[in-house]
This record gives sequence, structure tokens and C-alpha cells, in this order.
Amino acid sequence: MDLTPLVVEGATTKILLVVMDGLGGYADAAHSTELEEAATPNLDALAADGISGLVEPVGPGITPGSGPGHLALFGYDPEEFQLGRGALSAAGLEFVLEPGDVAARGNFCTLDADGEITDRRAGRIPDAEARALIERLQKEVKLGGVEVFFRHEREHRLLVVLRGDALDPRISDTDPQQIGVPPRESVALDTQAKRTADLVNELDRQIRATLSGEAKANGVLLRGFDSHRELPSFRQRYGVLAAAVAIYPMYRGIASLCGMEVLGRPANLTEQIAVLHAAWDDYDYFFLHHKYTDSAGEDGDRVRKIAAIEALDAAVPDLRALKPDVLVVSGDHATPTQMAAHSWHPVPTILWSKRGERDEVERYGERWSAHGALGTRPTKTLMPIMLAHAGRLAKYGA
Amino acid sequence: MDLTPLVVEGATTKILLVVMDGLGGYADAAHSTELEEAATPNLDALAADGISGLVEPVGPGITPGSGPGHLALFGYDPEEFQLGRGALSAAGLEFVLEPGDVAARGNFCTLDADGEITDRRAGRIPDAEARALIERLQKEVKLGGVEVFFRHEREHRLLVVLRGDALDPRISDTDPQQIGVPPRESVALDTQAKRTADLVNELDRQIRATLSGEAKANGVLLRGFDSHRELPSFRQRYGVLAAAVAIYPMYRGIASLCGMEVLGRPANLTEQIAVLHAAWDDYDYFFLHHKYTDSAGEDGDRVRKIAAIEALDAAVPDLRALKPDVLVVSGDHATPTQMAAHSWHPVPTILWSKRGERDEVERYGERWSAHGALGTRPTKTLMPIMLAHAGRLAKYGA
Repeated sequence: MDLTPLVVEGATTKILLVVMDGLGGYADAAHSTELEEAATPNLDALAADGISGLVEPVGPGITPGSGPGHLALFGYDPEEFQLGRGALSAAGLEFVLEPGDVAARGNFCTLDADGEITDRRAGRIPDAEARALIERLQKEVKLGGVEVFFRHEREHRLLVVLRGDALDPRISDTDPQQIGVPPRESVALDTQAKRTADLVNELDRQIRATLSGEAKANGVLLRGFDSHRELPSFRQRYGVLAAAVAIYPMYRGIASLCGMEVLGRPANLTEQIAVLHAAWDDYDYFFLHHKYTDSAGEDGDRVRKIAAIEALDAAVPDLRALKPDVLVVSGDHATPTQMAAHSWHPVPTILWSKRGERDEVERYGERWSAHGALGTRPTKTLMPIMLAHAGRLAKYGA
Repeated sequence: MDLTPLVVEGATTKILLVVMDGLGGYADAAHSTELEEAATPNLDALAADGISGLVEPVGPGITPGSGPGHLALFGYDPEEFQLGRGALSAAGLEFVLEPGDVAARGNFCTLDADGEITDRRAGRIPDAEARALIERLQKEVKLGGVEVFFRHEREHRLLVVLRGDALDPRISDTDPQQIGVPPRESVALDTQAKRTADLVNELDRQIRATLSGEAKANGVLLRGFDSHRELPSFRQRYGVLAAAVAIYPMYRGIASLCGMEVLGRPANLTEQIAVLHAAWDDYDYFFLHHKYTDSAGEDGDRVRKIAAIEALDAAVPDLRALKPDVLVVSGDHATPTQMAAHSWHPVPTILWSKRGERDEVERYGERWSAHGALGTRPTKTLMPIMLAHAGRLAKYGA
């Protein structure tokens, strides 16, 4: 439903969304979920004071990437609004894509003598080393009639942008997402994209030539080709001034694509909370991103994921001290440590507001949240509920 | 899903829908919800015998007007079928709108010497006084080439209908929905509606001239301009003969727009139940509307809302004595007394049928209903479930 006609002008309420990346998990014969097992006295108190539920980011059984997971939390239907990894990376680096540009996420990788991938992340090479290689690529690689931009993200990750006439992002990845095979040729997914695929394959040859002397980072895998996208902004859609407090480029990027102001350069949760406090008077809506639940989940590290949840729990009193009118804690998707990957499992969610509808749930965790007043619902439905609780939506119909 | 192809012909089962207007509420630090606190032994017994859930009338976070709230209960998607207040008022007064008519809801209001509104309801002037003023308006106001009808609803409320060529309801309200400002000029929301907006502004001038001597009711605020709408009927959509037992015009009107027979002129719940009993053999589906939960909610009167719930509870044995095959108790939206207004909060719902699927819920109220077998679902999904429980829907697909 288009909320724009219902937006209440002049509201002064504040909304805070806390996203623990990859929060969700599942219980198995050996273990409860990471969240169930974590000691979370402050989140439990919040669950007791507010209402709980489970959210499904994209759809039942669908494992979301970080883009759709966040868009859903922001109330943008992730089937309607699709962002390639390239556009996300560019936004995260504050690289402004122009109409017609084609962007991709790149990974430095290690290729063996047969050209097969032995490490998709080139041993997670340090930032300084990656930056030097990127400078070399920027100098040496030349495509006829098309500009190429290489930008470093973090560790082995980079952004690659092509700029020129008649480029088309509808081409396949060169990243096969596995080791023991060579990188793939990029293939046009539409007849109009033939030239772009050819350019990308030529780019791949030049990159390998330039990096041929490297022991670790002697190739680049490309994925998520995408073009410039305009998303309608939070201000347009919801009438709120929104700000993001995130450490990692991609989440800063998604927030910025939705028209959020991306605040400061915090390096850890303590700094994030300081940034939040400093900016509290200046915005209506705040998105706080906590990455380490997901990183630990992706590494299959149960102990570290639990610790990351507990670190966020310890910050909850500082968040409640801001006295938001609406406070939501959720995640963009599940990353169960048993799978060491994103998954489709629903994500436990708490909503607290002065119009809070306390339910009977008194702990935060999959098995308890399932009984809450929010029920099990699509993630994208949280945003209108948050706006409603903040008194920011008018009545529909006579 | 279009149910028409699934409708079972010749079924003789009976469905009873009981709507407590504005039933839902929310718990806060000081209070349980009104329904949780009310003593409802009969509704609790019904919840124990049947299945429970929560319903969202229009969408998550959306606060419904009475029109969309009821359309959803009747199984009409409130985003697909939209009714202006004018069309609802006309239907409630049994004023038959012709194609091309433009109708609006009017309020007598009080204007001060500067033409600013001091009371949007003209002190809720008594019916007799309002009727006399409406007779005067009907006599004095003349618009070139267009007929104007004034009809009294209740207290300060009236219906205004324009009839003539090339009228267009896409114009803005003159009611600013606040005091301390003058009524608004009506503005065309579409270029084709320019003449209608001009006519309405001329109408406003003539109304003020006619009422200029009045102390209280010296103006009329207009809102919800709408034209004649045809809704598909219950008979067409569901193959049922439907009847409504309601006291207030608007609910009688909505029911009639859906093709229900509006029964009798009951003045209170006892008379409503007598009407229901008398007509029980003649229809398949009955809609019983209980208004006072909402009136009390709108007044922020917690004690009176609880009493209104308890009054309905006392009638439940009489309703069960009819031996309906399917009995549903729900509400068209929430009207929490803390807000003294409609809200988006989900509405607790009971469904009882011989195929009743008893669940573990044994009390009627937000916190208990949330655990029921109906789950949390859109209100519009209740209608197919009711028809199914009544054996009125055939198998889908081979």
C-alpha cells in the first residue's frame, strides 16, 4: 500500500531501528538458537515491555542477500526494488553512479597455474596491499571507448565501474561462487548486452595480465552487475528525515540509496552510539546497523555470534536512554552458525512504543518471539507499523 | 481470490457476523486492554469452544475508517473497493444516488465573526433544530443548472448531494478538520472537476448567507465527495442472501451497498436481537453491528467501553440460541480509549463453527487471541474462512 497519502506532516516523533545483521538462527538437536542461548537481560526486558514477532525478509523460504533484507526493513518491497551488488558497493563507497554506468562488486582471488580458483578471497589480503594493486589496475587496464574505475572497498573487495555509451548490466557474473573451477566467461542475458559482456571478458584478460606476477591476488571475480538506480527516498515515501549509523560500506550505501543521511565514520558500537546521541535532535528516523552477528554467523562461529548479540544487548540501555517513541530490534535475515551462510529462517523482532500493546512474550528469541502480538509477518510490514506507532500515518478511508 | 466459481449452490447453512465497532485496544503500563479487562464469560466460553486470532482490517499499521473496516469484514478488499463518506452517508439514509450524482458528508459548524471555525459540530445541535435548518437550506439554496439535496442524518450531520451534468467528485474537502481556521475553498483534484469545485464554493457562500443569523449552526463543513458506486453484492460474490441488523445509518448504508437487506429500525441491542430472531429463517448471512464500543472508545471513556463490551457479552447466549452454523465475533478496527480515536491495532476475533478446530485459547482478548489457530491475518480473509466453515465453498482444482 502506498503510504504517501497518509503521511502526517509536522510529526516530531522519533523512530529507532536496530538491525543485528544475520541475527536469526535455528535450534537443532544439539543447540538452541544463538539468540536463545545468549544472555540478553536488556533485550528480554524490551521484549517484556513491547510486542514480539517473527519476520520473513523477502518471502517464505527465500534466503535474502543483504540488499533485499535491508530494503524490506526499510519498507521497500524487495521484489519491487532490486539492487545489484555493484550499485550497493558504489553507494557504500560514495561513488556516484551516472545514468548508463555499469557497476560490479569485485573480489581479488587466487588462481592456480591452470587458472582455477584456489581462494575466492585471495587470503583476505590487507587493505594496503589491495589498494596498491588497485592503483596498478587503474593505470594499466584500458578498454576501447569505455572508462573503467577501480575502487577499493575493504580487504579483498573492490568496486568496478564501466562508463560509456550503450552499456547494459544484463550480463552474467564471472564469479562462479566456488573454488576448483576457473572464473566464468560473462554471458549476455539479453541480446542488447552482448557488447558489455565482451568488454567484461576483455577486462578480465587485462586484469589477469596485470596481476600475473602476484602470488595471492592474481585475479578478480566480478558479480552483481548493475546500473544506476534511483530509489524513492524516505522523505518522499514516509515524510521522515532519516539517518544511518553504520560501519560497513554496503549498509551505508543501502541507507544512502534510500535517501538517508549517513552519519560519521564510527569504527565500533561505542562510537556508533555516540554518533547516534550527537545526531538525535536532527532526524526523525535512525537506522543502527550491527554487523558482527552476521560476520560470526558466516564464519560458523557460534561463540562469537553469541558474544556479538550480547555486545548489542549491553548497549540497549544507552539506546533506550534516547527515549525514542518507537524502538524496533530485528535483523535483515538469519545467518545460522550451523550453515555458516545466510538463510531463510524468520527473524525474531521486538517493537516497543508508548502505544506498545504489551503481549505475553518476556524473552527475546525465536521460540518466544513466535508467540508475540506481531505474529509472523513479512519484514516489509514493519515500516508502516513503526510509522503508525509513531503517530505518523493518518486514517485510511471514511 | 475470486470465490464465485467455488460457491456451492443450495447450501442452507447460516452465518452470523457480530461486529463490535472499534473493539480493539492496547495494553500499556497502567492497563490491560478494555476487552481483556471486561468480564466476558460468554465470549470466553465461545473462544474456548472455537478458534481465535487477530485481524488487521486494511493493512499493517493502517488506521481504517469505518468504511474500509467493514468492507474488509465483508470480504471486500478495502484497497480495491473505496467508498467516500458521501456515498456511505447517502446509503445510510437510503438516499439512492444516481449515476453522475456527487455526494458529501456535511457537518453543521460554528463560525466566529472572522469566519473561523470555533466548533466543528455546532455544539452537536439537537435533531429537531438541525432538521429545521436543513429545510431552510433546501428552500433557499439554488445552484444554476444543478439540483441540490440536503438530508439530515443525526445531530449536526447531514448529507449534501449535487445532481446535474458533468459533475465530478474529484474535489477537495471544505472541512479543514481543525478549529481556529476558516473552512477551506474546495479545489479541483483533476482538471475535469473544476466546475464542480466552483459549484461547491458557491454552495458554501449561499449556505453561510442562509444561516448567517444562527448563533451555533452558521456554517456547513463538507468532506468525502464521492459519486455513485456499485459494489458487487453478497449474492453475486458469495451466493448468500445477506441481512444487516444495525442501528446507525452509516453501517446500514455500507451493508446496503453490499446488497444486504437492512432489517427493521432497532433502537438498541435488545431490539436488534429481536429483529435477528424474527428474520432468522429468511437469510443465509447476518451482520449484527454493535456501535457503543466505538463511541465510548472515541470519547476516551474506558469504563463505558468495557460496559459496552459486557453488554454484548450478555447477548451472546441469545445469539448462540439461534444455532448459527458459523458465528464470528470481531471488530472493524481498534479504538483504544488511550487514543480516543481509531487505530491500526489488530482486532481480536473468534470463529466458532461445528467444524470448529478448538485451539488452546480460552479467553477473548488481545493477548490470548494472539495465540489462536486463526493467527494474525488480514480481516478480508475472514469471509472465505466463514464460507468454508459453512460448507459454502467447493474444492479448488482437480
